[in-house]
Amino acid sequence: MGNWRDNLRRVVPYTPGEQPQQKNVVKLNTNENPYPPAPGVKKLLSEMDDKRMRLYPDPAARKLVNAIADYYNVDENMVFVGVGSDDVIAMCFLTFFNSEKPILFPDISYSFYSVWADLFKVKYECPKLNEKFELVKEDYYKENGGIIFPNPNAPTSSAVSLEFVEDIVKHNSDSIVIIDEAYVDFGAESALELTRKYENLLVVQTYSKSRSMAGMRIGYAIGNAELIKALNDVKYSFNSYTLNYPSIELGVAAIKDESYFKETVAKIIKTREAAKVRLSELGFSYPDSKANFLFVTHKNKYAGDIFDYLKSKNIYVRYFKKEGIDNYLRITVGTDEQMEILYKELENYLNKKES
Amino acid sequence: MGNWRDNLRRVVPYTPGEQPQQKNVVKLNTNENPYPPAPGVKKLLSEMDDKRMRLYPDPAARKLVNAIADYYNVDENMVFVGVGSDDVIAMCFLTFFNSEKPILFPDISYSFYSVWADLFKVKYECPKLNEKFELVKEDYYKENGGIIFPNPNAPTSSAVSLEFVEDIVKHNSDSIVIIDEAYVDFGAESALELTRKYENLLVVQTYSKSRSMAGMRIGYAIGNAELIKALNDVKYSFNSYTLNYPSIELGVAAIKDESYFKETVAKIIKTREAAKVRLSELGFSYPDSKANFLFVTHKNKYAGDIFDYLKSKNIYVRYFKKEGIDNYLRITVGTDEQMEILYKELENYLNKKES
Repeated sequence: MGNWRDNLRRVVPYTPGEQPQQKNVVKLNTNENPYPPAPGVKKLLSEMDDKRMRLYPDPAARKLVNAIADYYNVDENMVFVGVGSDDVIAMCFLTFFNSEKPILFPDISYSFYSVWADLFKVKYECPKLNEKFELVKEDYYKENGGIIFPNPNAPTSSAVSLEFVEDIVKHNSDSIVIIDEAYVDFGAESALELTRKYENLLVVQTYSKSRSMAGMRIGYAIGNAELIKALNDVKYSFNSYTLNYPSIELGVAAIKDESYFKETVAKIIKTREAAKVRLSELGFSYPDSKANFLFVTHKNKYAGDIFDYLKSKNIYVRYFKKEGIDNYLRITVGTDEQMEILYKELENYLNKKES
Repeated sequence: MGNWRDNLRRVVPYTPGEQPQQKNVVKLNTNENPYPPAPGVKKLLSEMDDKRMRLYPDPAARKLVNAIADYYNVDENMVFVGVGSDDVIAMCFLTFFNSEKPILFPDISYSFYSVWADLFKVKYECPKLNEKFELVKEDYYKENGGIIFPNPNAPTSSAVSLEFVEDIVKHNSDSIVIIDEAYVDFGAESALELTRKYENLLVVQTYSKSRSMAGMRIGYAIGNAELIKALNDVKYSFNSYTLNYPSIELGVAAIKDESYFKETVAKIIKTREAAKVRLSELGFSYPDSKANFLFVTHKNKYAGDIFDYLKSKNIYVRYFKKEGIDNYLRITVGTDEQMEILYKELENYLNKKES
């Protein structure tokens, strides 16, 4: 009786950043874009046909695939789309990481990688970042069942060069190398152009950051047609209809507006660079961010305490209670106005006499 | 060089029903609802805030979970939501079917079950339906690692009684029993009320059929809180943010409009019952459908030929070239107008002199 419990898959669930429900919060904890999506999204939303919703969406999401292929000037059969880059990367783990050898990803990186590996029973090893939180290329030259890392890395914010990526891809022609470029638009070099040259390279990007559409859940992968077909085969065997009707339509509208995209990305970069100066002045140091967030530590205050103080002031940043980074905060780059509120509260906290 | 191919997961991808792109098609091939979603959906769509899209959706989709829980008068912790019932059931396979013993599902049933089992390397056995395409209860009394079947069954359309379901649940207290009720609203008895009584029972439903929202991808499972927690743990470790902002909002609007729901379901049932009479007159026979489709065979014409003829007339129905059912067509119940076009073309075909 009740032995069905023996067959449950036990996992340690990922804990996403808090999504506070109250208003008047300065929300700098989940790396969302502070600006709304492209104006074409609003327009299309108001024109959307409710009657179309009774039909299944196009399982191949061709309109969206074509729009992404056009934008990046690649062939349509080099593009795979999914419900956010989390869905895309989960499908990659399921599709590509089936070796008996361990896959490799950095010890300090996107926390979902180990969660997917555990879920799908994929062996893994985690080479350590160096003391500057940088990836060490040579760590990825050993035998492995696949490689994945973000560029820029999360939550550390710094990027590696295209040459660095190419070296790793070249040294691993028997493995699939996945570059998770969720934050690439904010100043790193994309490996997209290398996908034509290396058949074992896959680049993953998302609408959630630089395109201000975290709420829509759209991610995509670009790589050679054979990799994309393998991904689609697994996707179709999992759930044929994943991107819903609004995602497909609005995703097209968003990617077509390149000038709005460039403008908002430039604003975020400008705010980030200003933040580097201001946070230095306040006694913080950080790796040189190429993302839409900063990974900061203070010279004499404990990160956990700063986190608690900011939260008490309705400013949400992200704190990871994890060895090696437990004196760091990850702060999303918001609007200039939001950042001023942050600086002011940090000043208040740092100038406060200890009670 | 290129040995990365050795680590690809090879799957036989599911082939979804055709989604013809041309207009003027009578589309009776994918069991969609011929009526638009509830009027509240259209209203909410036009009011939707594009600025909210920059933020991640609530990972717990609480608004939607609460609305579903309210509607069915169950506790919120008894409801799991996903990207269509395909996503929900895939998560169920991953979460619940981890025994060394085979799971059981009917030999003629939803074709995705074997696809998920293969994908996740779950052993399975498929008891045969009897000659009337009915499930045989006793086939599900043997040792197993879990049970799943649709009620009404697809593509055969007939339903089993609540007593039948309860017998299977009672005989399998060491297994999780999943009733896939995608079509239940069209005339079968839901096992929902049994979820309070049996901890090993999970009921899965969808917005894609009776709620006219296939294009939105919303499915849900109802069962005891322990099952739902296990599902959520796996879901969070797969992709924390699955249902997007429009799905959560519009899903709430749809479920609140019970009178529209009842009205459209009643129309479909009426059209189906009329179709039974008309199709009989044309020489078809079928199991007694409790779904929004009919599973028909003709006394002297081959189903594949009828399918081809109808397609040439821009009428799409579904034909499965599979042993045991390869002389059957699955015809979705459309509007009365669509059905009249179907009858007319069937008459044309059946009266046609052989050329």
